[in-house]
Amino acid sequence: MSLLVVGTVAFDAIETPFGKTDKIVGGAASYIALASSYFTNEINLVSVVGDDFPKDFMNTLKGQGVSLEGLQIKQGEKSFFWSGRYHNDMNSRDTLDTQLNVLAEFDPIVPESYKDCDFLMLGNLMPAVQQKVLSQLTKRPKLIVLDTMNFWMDIAMPELLETLKGIDVLTINDSEARQLSGEYSLVKAAQKILAMGPKVLVIKKGEHGALLFNKDEVFFAPALPLEDVFDPTGAGDSFAGGFIGYLAKTKDVSFENMKRAIIFGSAMASFTVEKFGTERLIGLSDEDVSKRVQEFVDLVQFDISLV
Amino acid sequence: MSLLVVGTVAFDAIETPFGKTDKIVGGAASYIALASSYFTNEINLVSVVGDDFPKDFMNTLKGQGVSLEGLQIKQGEKSFFWSGRYHNDMNSRDTLDTQLNVLAEFDPIVPESYKDCDFLMLGNLMPAVQQKVLSQLTKRPKLIVLDTMNFWMDIAMPELLETLKGIDVLTINDSEARQLSGEYSLVKAAQKILAMGPKVLVIKKGEHGALLFNKDEVFFAPALPLEDVFDPTGAGDSFAGGFIGYLAKTKDVSFENMKRAIIFGSAMASFTVEKFGTERLIGLSDEDVSKRVQEFVDLVQFDISLV
Repeated sequence: MSLLVVGTVAFDAIETPFGKTDKIVGGAASYIALASSYFTNEINLVSVVGDDFPKDFMNTLKGQGVSLEGLQIKQGEKSFFWSGRYHNDMNSRDTLDTQLNVLAEFDPIVPESYKDCDFLMLGNLMPAVQQKVLSQLTKRPKLIVLDTMNFWMDIAMPELLETLKGIDVLTINDSEARQLSGEYSLVKAAQKILAMGPKVLVIKKGEHGALLFNKDEVFFAPALPLEDVFDPTGAGDSFAGGFIGYLAKTKDVSFENMKRAIIFGSAMASFTVEKFGTERLIGLSDEDVSKRVQEFVDLVQFDISLV
Repeated sequence: MSLLVVGTVAFDAIETPFGKTDKIVGGAASYIALASSYFTNEINLVSVVGDDFPKDFMNTLKGQGVSLEGLQIKQGEKSFFWSGRYHNDMNSRDTLDTQLNVLAEFDPIVPESYKDCDFLMLGNLMPAVQQKVLSQLTKRPKLIVLDTMNFWMDIAMPELLETLKGIDVLTINDSEARQLSGEYSLVKAAQKILAMGPKVLVIKKGEHGALLFNKDEVFFAPALPLEDVFDPTGAGDSFAGGFIGYLAKTKDVSFENMKRAIIFGSAMASFTVEKFGTERLIGLSDEDVSKRVQEFVDLVQFDISLV
């Protein structure tokens, strides 16, 4: 089923305790599209870059089956750039530089052939931009997943709350869930957020796994304990890409199937953090993915017979 | 099978965002003995209190099947007292007061009838005191589990390392695992610590669950997402009590059975944090425990068939 991915395609420069990169390709939509490409092959991208963006990476995306008809290339302009430094714990980071460039005036245009998408992944962007995408669709997708961040809660809460009313699944991290709800307990936070519109909430806890809530149920997916987390950039987007990619592949948006999808999402995130940038998400085999998912199964599988 | 529990029986005064207690009963061995009493009924306690310690609580322990022959009552002396204040996140706390009292000169004496115990739980105490217990046993227990803390790593590392050589399972939290190993990655930390003597390592991560490692395998048990964590005091000890209690009940110390044991331990910890002190660990029914364990099963159970 067709999957529409909206989000940034950009440059990052990253410092971690393991090393440092010059400008490399990043952006939420890059990670989402690559991660989802292991599950479904009808992926349409809506994003914007400057004329400085490498043709090589566009060809890589095409090679993974991603349509770039909706990727605007602004002549004479520069791509969005973010630079950051991770602390030793890899859970916190400082932003060193942010250059909006093409993103400052981004007007998302959904091509005609994308407008009847079955699945929609709205990567982290200004809520008003996310809404502009929704308003262009000719039918309600089977599933709308939205990612956002604390920055929009700080400066655009009314627009964010309006956008949340129309979506199915919200993915945010634990501190964002606390900020959005005003509740410290994630169980209480989830119930408040589910009352804002989303039917399902995914709370991402990085190395501590992820929680999946609907009004009546909760499911927990662990993160894989790794020897080294090399670069956490894009982990949450890879998670989202694996999640919606698996749902699009299986055409089943039940809570039970979302449990499986969150495991596949976690598996894709576990690849991403093993190398800088998008490198590890390129050229994986089906067997690589299956083996990784099996590691998650082994990690939490136990057999208790209760009388 | 007989379980010997060694550790503090003491007073605590606790402040959390939910309230504040006067002196209430606490101590590692109190929580361990109570939690394990739901699984096995041959529990022997070695500890020390002053003559200020309430008879009521001793009767509660006896009522749960705990033998107090090894509980020294020091006339004219006071019980160990700890007072602390938890921060809003419940993961960090400040110690407000510590009065060693009877603990300052604690010389653990293992009664004759305890010396051939099958299972031994050494709760957090000075490593030299833990070793004194080991030296009095007439046979090697089937399983020795030891809990310790960062304080002993700071002031008694050589004695701690010596003690670790003779045990089977070490339980510590994530920051202690990092301190003991000098490794940030918990996977690397685990391998270093397993080379110090223990065959199995449990890393407790509080609200983020627990990891179980041996040299070749890893298992993850989640914590139950709770509406409110009322008072985290004793959660780690309740976890240890449920863990070793379940192993003593089932007489099976394989890694597979330890996976189950860690889930029962997590269930006992999830009760403890729901009220102040030991209150919630008293008078649970078998059905209460089974229902709680079922919640853990439901929390992580998923069904993925990989081709």
